[in-house]
Amino acid sequence: MPKGFKAAGIAAGIKKNGNRDTGLIYSEIPAVCAGVFTKNRVKAACVVLDQKRLSETGLCQAVIVNSGNANCCTGDAGMVDAQVMGKSVSVAMGIEEAHVMVASTGVIGQRLPVEKIETAVPELSIKLSGGSDSRGFAEFAEAIMTTDTVPKMVSRSGEIDGRAYTVTGIAKGAGMIRPDMATMLCFVATDIGIAQKDLQVLVADANEQSFNRITIDGDTSTNDTLLVMANGMSGAHANTPGRLEAFGSVLEDVLVSLAKMCVKDGEGATKLVEIAVVNAASDEDARQIADTVANSNLVKTAFFGEDANWGRIIAAMGRAGVDFEYARVDVWFDDIRLVENGVYLGRDAETAATRVLKQPEFKVTLDMKAGRGTDAVWTCDFSIDYVKINADYRS
Amino acid sequence: MPKGFKAAGIAAGIKKNGNRDTGLIYSEIPAVCAGVFTKNRVKAACVVLDQKRLSETGLCQAVIVNSGNANCCTGDAGMVDAQVMGKSVSVAMGIEEAHVMVASTGVIGQRLPVEKIETAVPELSIKLSGGSDSRGFAEFAEAIMTTDTVPKMVSRSGEIDGRAYTVTGIAKGAGMIRPDMATMLCFVATDIGIAQKDLQVLVADANEQSFNRITIDGDTSTNDTLLVMANGMSGAHANTPGRLEAFGSVLEDVLVSLAKMCVKDGEGATKLVEIAVVNAASDEDARQIADTVANSNLVKTAFFGEDANWGRIIAAMGRAGVDFEYARVDVWFDDIRLVENGVYLGRDAETAATRVLKQPEFKVTLDMKAGRGTDAVWTCDFSIDYVKINADYRS
Repeated sequence: MPKGFKAAGIAAGIKKNGNRDTGLIYSEIPAVCAGVFTKNRVKAACVVLDQKRLSETGLCQAVIVNSGNANCCTGDAGMVDAQVMGKSVSVAMGIEEAHVMVASTGVIGQRLPVEKIETAVPELSIKLSGGSDSRGFAEFAEAIMTTDTVPKMVSRSGEIDGRAYTVTGIAKGAGMIRPDMATMLCFVATDIGIAQKDLQVLVADANEQSFNRITIDGDTSTNDTLLVMANGMSGAHANTPGRLEAFGSVLEDVLVSLAKMCVKDGEGATKLVEIAVVNAASDEDARQIADTVANSNLVKTAFFGEDANWGRIIAAMGRAGVDFEYARVDVWFDDIRLVENGVYLGRDAETAATRVLKQPEFKVTLDMKAGRGTDAVWTCDFSIDYVKINADYRS
Repeated sequence: MPKGFKAAGIAAGIKKNGNRDTGLIYSEIPAVCAGVFTKNRVKAACVVLDQKRLSETGLCQAVIVNSGNANCCTGDAGMVDAQVMGKSVSVAMGIEEAHVMVASTGVIGQRLPVEKIETAVPELSIKLSGGSDSRGFAEFAEAIMTTDTVPKMVSRSGEIDGRAYTVTGIAKGAGMIRPDMATMLCFVATDIGIAQKDLQVLVADANEQSFNRITIDGDTSTNDTLLVMANGMSGAHANTPGRLEAFGSVLEDVLVSLAKMCVKDGEGATKLVEIAVVNAASDEDARQIADTVANSNLVKTAFFGEDANWGRIIAAMGRAGVDFEYARVDVWFDDIRLVENGVYLGRDAETAATRVLKQPEFKVTLDMKAGRGTDAVWTCDFSIDYVKINADYRS
């Protein structure tokens, strides 16, 4: 675990099933902090509070998070509750209130039982662990889960001038996910030293390559928050362009890994599918086509049915708002070409493509033969369980 | 049935289950014809052919339609097959080839077994019926069904100067439907007399109020075609602004009824839901919000679960790309207000709202309190059966 960070996660009684629902990450010293937040016009109180605090100080010493309730659309009370959450950590840990970030996830529109969190914070502060003991982080990862079936934590390390640093990220999915910003909760702790301005740039870039490239159901959340804290306690400093770039790629690796884990664990998902568009007229065209195909319910239900239904893929491409000649398009499933210049290659190709679709992970490549534009996004299939999960999420 | 029109529908062996799959509508004299077609960049051969013929002559004496195969993405052969379909009708009925329109619906990307249609056409021509016998039209309605569970036919009549005219429309759904043009097949026969230019304007307007206001799954088809034929044989002529307006509202009534029938029979649908946005800053804002909510998988799965999950509605509104203050929004389910000024009104309101959701049809009203903009669309719920239907559509 990164030096100087500790974490914990416990059950405070917010989730009806008694699972862990409240977590705390703490840094021994105030850490430089950068964040990316939902672009949804409706923002949860915690998002509004964090954005304000981040812009004022750029520092964070603790993050308190609950699952089971999004503290969103709860009127003025919501902001009071978010502040109370933060204040209880400030008091328990003896740190500045302005250095506490707050996040919530769960059902929208119900008043947050904030007194349960207030009660939980002293216990959380006692249970904090870090260093060689990753248990606290693992419990934190559990505590932020909603419909996720597995906790999601990734650690990577790097080195600057002989000094090792660690980047540990924890995220949750698993629905209301679409590539229009950090589309979930994700918290990253690193012991690298870095200027706040530089960190914000790297976080925005890495987010673009990771969480902004995944979709589960095309909906976006009111609570999306990605926070990266860097406390500098490793002694490694990202203070030159080369070092920033190297750290940026480690950070990106952590976020991409977490993003893929989120799609793979998408609500009801049985398959992780990369949609790659190559040789498009522009990168923007490629992205728009990839997004439209990745969000098509008909394409996604066909993936669930392990049906190489390329007609639906072409039909989705056709509504992407991009000009292209479909009579040039090749469609590949991994290394099997099923369509060449817009025409089906026959039963043998289909049999081979169907074998590809039976795998838990595969890649669809759309070769536009129109230029040099390229882009890719990750999606999952759309299953019966997605509907089951979301038909009675609140009950 | 409108005067001078006949129709028939038979099983030509294209559908694997042996159901009717090929239909013909015929007018004793060439009819003025107007059409609206898919905006998808990928267009089936029949769409391309019809658009060409319509722009050249503006007349139509017969429409030949098959289901079970979309004749789309089949290369140059697709256009040849579409022409062969038309030619066989031209030969059998002794009419001009340029006056035959062609439509197909079904699986994309497989070569059309056009010889089956050629074989079927003489039988279709013998079975044509009309006048007081609606059987041929009913069988035509069956023949164009794909995943529809019921045929969809609506007749309305009007009167001009003591002369009655009839408007009969037949449509099919039931998936790949989204408000971005006539999003299915729809054929309308009327015995009114009208100029082609006037008819095209009225058809485009009526389409805007009907098929452009429905969504089932957010995907759009490559084959969408709405054709309206007017043969003038009633002797009633829409030849003044007032008469055009009166006929326009009868036509709109037919299309709106068919559009709602399509949503109600949407793949797996158990509920027909109107999403109405009132008091928005503009009509455009209202439409964008209504569309986004109507297409949200999370909102639609909640409808399926009969869960008054207004948080998902507000979250979907937030990603509509429209500026608004959610703290002003009221959310109504029929006449039950569940949210006032962005705040939940409590358990009693929720119990009442849940009763509304248990109905097969209801209306969600979103009061923005921002201006005078208003608009509404129709959607359905998103059920387990939608996924089942689409996971093995081709098998």
